[in-house]
This record gives sequence, structure tokens and C-alpha cells, in this order.
Amino acid sequence: MPSNRQFRLAARPVGLPKHSDWKLTTEAVADPADGQVLVKVLQLSLDPAMRGWMNEGRSYIPPVGIGEVMRAGGVGKVVASKNPKFSVGDHVAGGFGIQEYCLVDAKDLARVGLHPIDLRLGTLQQWLNALGMPGMTGYFGLLDIGQPKAGETVVVSGAAGAVGQTVGQVARIKGCRTVGIAGGKAKCDFVVQELKYDACIDYKDGSLKDGLKAHCPKGVDIYFDNVGGEILDTVLTRINRGARIVICGAISQYNNTTPVKGPANYLSLLVNRARMQGMVVFDYADRYGVAVKDIAQWMKEGKFVSREDVVEGIDTFPDTLNRLFSGENFGKLVLKIAD
Amino acid sequence: MPSNRQFRLAARPVGLPKHSDWKLTTEAVADPADGQVLVKVLQLSLDPAMRGWMNEGRSYIPPVGIGEVMRAGGVGKVVASKNPKFSVGDHVAGGFGIQEYCLVDAKDLARVGLHPIDLRLGTLQQWLNALGMPGMTGYFGLLDIGQPKAGETVVVSGAAGAVGQTVGQVARIKGCRTVGIAGGKAKCDFVVQELKYDACIDYKDGSLKDGLKAHCPKGVDIYFDNVGGEILDTVLTRINRGARIVICGAISQYNNTTPVKGPANYLSLLVNRARMQGMVVFDYADRYGVAVKDIAQWMKEGKFVSREDVVEGIDTFPDTLNRLFSGENFGKLVLKIAD
Repeated sequence: MPSNRQFRLAARPVGLPKHSDWKLTTEAVADPADGQVLVKVLQLSLDPAMRGWMNEGRSYIPPVGIGEVMRAGGVGKVVASKNPKFSVGDHVAGGFGIQEYCLVDAKDLARVGLHPIDLRLGTLQQWLNALGMPGMTGYFGLLDIGQPKAGETVVVSGAAGAVGQTVGQVARIKGCRTVGIAGGKAKCDFVVQELKYDACIDYKDGSLKDGLKAHCPKGVDIYFDNVGGEILDTVLTRINRGARIVICGAISQYNNTTPVKGPANYLSLLVNRARMQGMVVFDYADRYGVAVKDIAQWMKEGKFVSREDVVEGIDTFPDTLNRLFSGENFGKLVLKIAD
Repeated sequence: MPSNRQFRLAARPVGLPKHSDWKLTTEAVADPADGQVLVKVLQLSLDPAMRGWMNEGRSYIPPVGIGEVMRAGGVGKVVASKNPKFSVGDHVAGGFGIQEYCLVDAKDLARVGLHPIDLRLGTLQQWLNALGMPGMTGYFGLLDIGQPKAGETVVVSGAAGAVGQTVGQVARIKGCRTVGIAGGKAKCDFVVQELKYDACIDYKDGSLKDGLKAHCPKGVDIYFDNVGGEILDTVLTRINRGARIVICGAISQYNNTTPVKGPANYLSLLVNRARMQGMVVFDYADRYGVAVKDIAQWMKEGKFVSREDVVEGIDTFPDTLNRLFSGENFGKLVLKIAD
């Protein structure tokens, strides 16, 4: 049998995760017993939310335990199966963790979320992006929580990132004016030229407030927030009456060693009778099929692009993950670990 | 003609309003011209929101201009009228301002919100409280924004204050568990004994977090926030999945000379798929009649009390207003200026 390399959490990080917070272990891969499925992991999804799973304390899912394989979503191929629902050669997605093989018990199929994926609808890496968690997050966060109406202005932070890609493109398809916020000219160009946002504001270059004034002449009806911090606070000064703020993440705050910065301008919610609402994608699991069908159709029609930033090699994991927090990744960050 | 004493805004306050921020002026009262109504103001409503109206800048209504009579709601009696809609002796409510007489032009009837009040439904001071703006704010904020369901737990800050009174009593009538937050034993006793909240936590005595744990064993489904600051932040750590936070005010922050403290724990909205939504009572003006009818009926049935803290004398206005910010008032603060 092959051996299985795994990244395990060695310590709870303080601030940005360090190499010493990880332990690379190797174990033998066992043959599947009755009901089990053995998946060879091909590509892994690296996401900002992973940083939260490394912290102790109450959240929407339990933290990863010290010594456990780091949690991560991925796509792979069934290489051995003693479960009638899965056959050798099937392409599948699920919460495999940062490892080369994942042996799934029959009783854990739901927990791991093991499910077949159809490569006619998208490539492996697109199944980690537009057709995967980021796509589902953007689709349901915008449509269910943001409730866009044609003609409204939708502002998206982290616009070049995995979730931001989907939000802006779905908003455009629904007839909204779309304004991204991203860091650096290359990302902003991508947001406008490839994702076809109406405009993108480079928060590293000049005043975000002036950018919002210039590009949102009718104010902000929906703000989809992936970053928190100063950017959230600034957008709060530009919202319209009845605005909806979707709280999807706060990447600017995840590696804080000081307390999280709360939005000082939150009383803009009162003045503008606006709301700020949090969302977690797992709540929409029973409707993922609807979103996948819509997005795959839009991709086929050329209205929607799925852009990934693929880094190769499981051994690069600790450094590759941190690219999310330095803003180095360009599009949805994918770790490719096998062909 | 009688003379009319008026408090005008002399300067924009920095922090707590000072005597020098006000100017007491006296002018003659004119006879009503065609279409005009002259109201003798009997009682005035003093509210935390008035502090916001004294600041420059964009808000839900324009600020009071320097030199203008301070904006305030009140109740009074028509003493002269050349408008067929109002007769001498009618009791009325409206935005009269801090003055002894208010002469209303026909074209300003809507702006002033001049309307008759029925003293069979409540006393003059109750028309400034349960049947007035605070009552309307609590009723619509709780029912429309909070959307309580029987059996849920509703937490209310400023529970002994004007809006808090209504929120807790309406929530109890709707079958919710009601937990107040107030400052000092006397207020907490009032909240439990007279307003019949299930419990009240004294935030000045011991840990609010422990109090919430003890009195909200099933967590917090609705938090009606009148105060902001640390109390909002602490309640955010105890909310349930799908919780609703009604942002009605932030009295702890109104006299800040440093930036407003944003809720550092706002990511609890994400974890708990919760929402935080602002409200302004004026949006419900076309439904005030429904609320007045409900509340008057509940008062008649003995299910609902309206408690006011009445201070006499227009000349006390600057000091009386500041009682709101020191927490000295006990029940809805009313300034009685004539019999």
C-alpha cells in the first residue's frame, strides 16, 4: 500500500500560523474494510475560514484538535471501495483534510460530505471554486441574505478572492451595478476585465472613501464583506437606506493578536434602517444542487468565469496557506497534490 | 399676548451638553393668522435621541441649527386657532420644541406632526410615553424588527427607560421570556416588580455575562439595544443561532469625545447566522394608530404600565436633559412646563 502524508495541527497559532504550528506525519494507507471508501486526494481547497478552525473556542464548527489532521475540503478519485455507493474511478469531493489519502467509514459519509462530482460541469479545480464552497457561499450569501434587486449597487470586498468572484458575477447577472474592493492593480484589473465588475477600488492605493463616492454615485445597497476591519467601517459610511450587509468573513482580523476591531460606524445601521447579517454556507447544503446548476450553465454560456491560483505540492502547505493572509493569492487558492 | 420662553441651541456640544450650549430667549406670542394654530405646550418629552440632533452631520433627520429652538416632542392644548381642523381646547401632540407656545402654520402641520390626542386612552404624560414615541419605538422595533416568537428569550438594555418599558411588556404579552438590563437596584426592582420582566440584571453590580448566563439559560433570541458599548458587546457573546439584534440607540456613546466603540464581537453574527438591524420610529407613522389601540387596551386591562419621571419647570431644561445621560431618570423623562 502507498503511504499517506498528512499535515497535523501541532499547536494553536498566535497570529499568523508558523511552521512550528504544523507537523508533517506519514502513515500507511489501509485497505478499505466493509463499507469504507478510499479516496486519493488530488486537489485541496485552502480558505480563510481554516484560520478560524485552528483557534480554540465556540464557533459554528468545533476547532481542529491538536494532533488532528488539518481540516480542508478537497477533490479526489476513488481508488478502492467496499461501499456500493462509490466505485473505483469515481471523482468525488468532500472534507478530506490536508493529506494524500482519505479513508472514509460508511458512518462518516455525511460528516465528510463525500459526494460524486461531474467533470462535465467543471474541472477539478472549478469544483473547489465556483462549483464548490466559495461558489456556494457567494451564491447563497448574495441571493438569500443580500436579496439584490436589479439596479442596486453591490460592493464586494476581497473581490478577486474565491467568494468575491462569485458574488460580483452573480450580482451582475442579476442586473446590479457591481463594485469590487481588492488590493493592488493586478487584482483590480482582473476584477474588472475578467470578472466584469463595473469598477474595482484598490484599497492600497488612495482613499477607499473617495473610491466609493466615485464608483457608487447612488450609494451602496448591498455590501458583501469578506474582510472586516477598516474597510467594513468605511463602507458603513456610504450605505443607503435599507442596505444589507452580508457578513461572510473578516480576513483582516483572523490573525489578530489584539482584540478584533468592531465596526465603529455600526450606528449607520440605525440611521439607514440597514441590517448586517452573518451567514455560514453549510446551512444551504440541501440547495447546493440548484446553485451548481445555475453556475455551470452561466459558465457554459460564457457569462461566468472561475479563476483559481493553483500551487503544487503538499509539502508547500504551510507557506501556501499563508498566501491567503498576505493577499498573494490571485483567485481561489488551490493546493494540487496529485494528478 | 403672553410671552414665550424658548431654549435655543447656542453651540454644538462637545461631550455632555453644558449650560453654555443653550440660550434661553423670550419672544412675544403672535395671534394666529389664517390657517395657523397656537398651542400652549404643557409637557415635553426629553429623549436620548435629542443628543444626536445637536450634532452636525448626516443622520436620519437634519441637525438642529445653531440659534434654532431645540427640537422636542410634546403635548399641549390649542389656545387659539384659525384652522378649521383644530379648535380651542383640543389636546394635541406634536414636535413643538423646547418652548412654552408653538404657533403652527397650515403648511407645517405635517412637519410638526400636529395631531389630536384622546385623553380617555391615557394621560398627557402617557401620550409622551407608552402612547407616544417611546411606546411606538418599542412596539414596532420589537414586533417588526425583532419578530418575537412565543417562548423566545428577549433581552432589553435600558429596560427601565422609556423604550425599554414598552419592549419588555410587549414581549411578555407575546409570550416571551423577558430579561432586562438596568443600572442600580431601584431600577432593577422596578423592572421586575412593576414592568413584570422575568428578571433584570444590574450592570453596575457584578458581571453582566454571569447575569446573562443565569437568567437566559436558553441563550438570547432577541436583543433590543438602547445603549451600545460594552453591554452590546457582552450580549453578542450569548446570542442564539438566528438571533435578531434591534439597534434602537446607543446612549453610552452619545456624549463620547473619542470615537464610538464598535461591537468587537460582531463576528458572533456570522457564527450564529444572526442579524443586527437599525430602526427609526418615524418609518411606522402610518401604523401608530394600531399600536396606540393595542397599548391603550393593555393598559386598560392592567397588563401594561406606563411610568414617567416628571420634572417641572422649563428653566430646568439643561439640567433635566442631562439626567438621561447620568442615568438619574427613572422611567420616561417628561418636562412639565404648564398645567
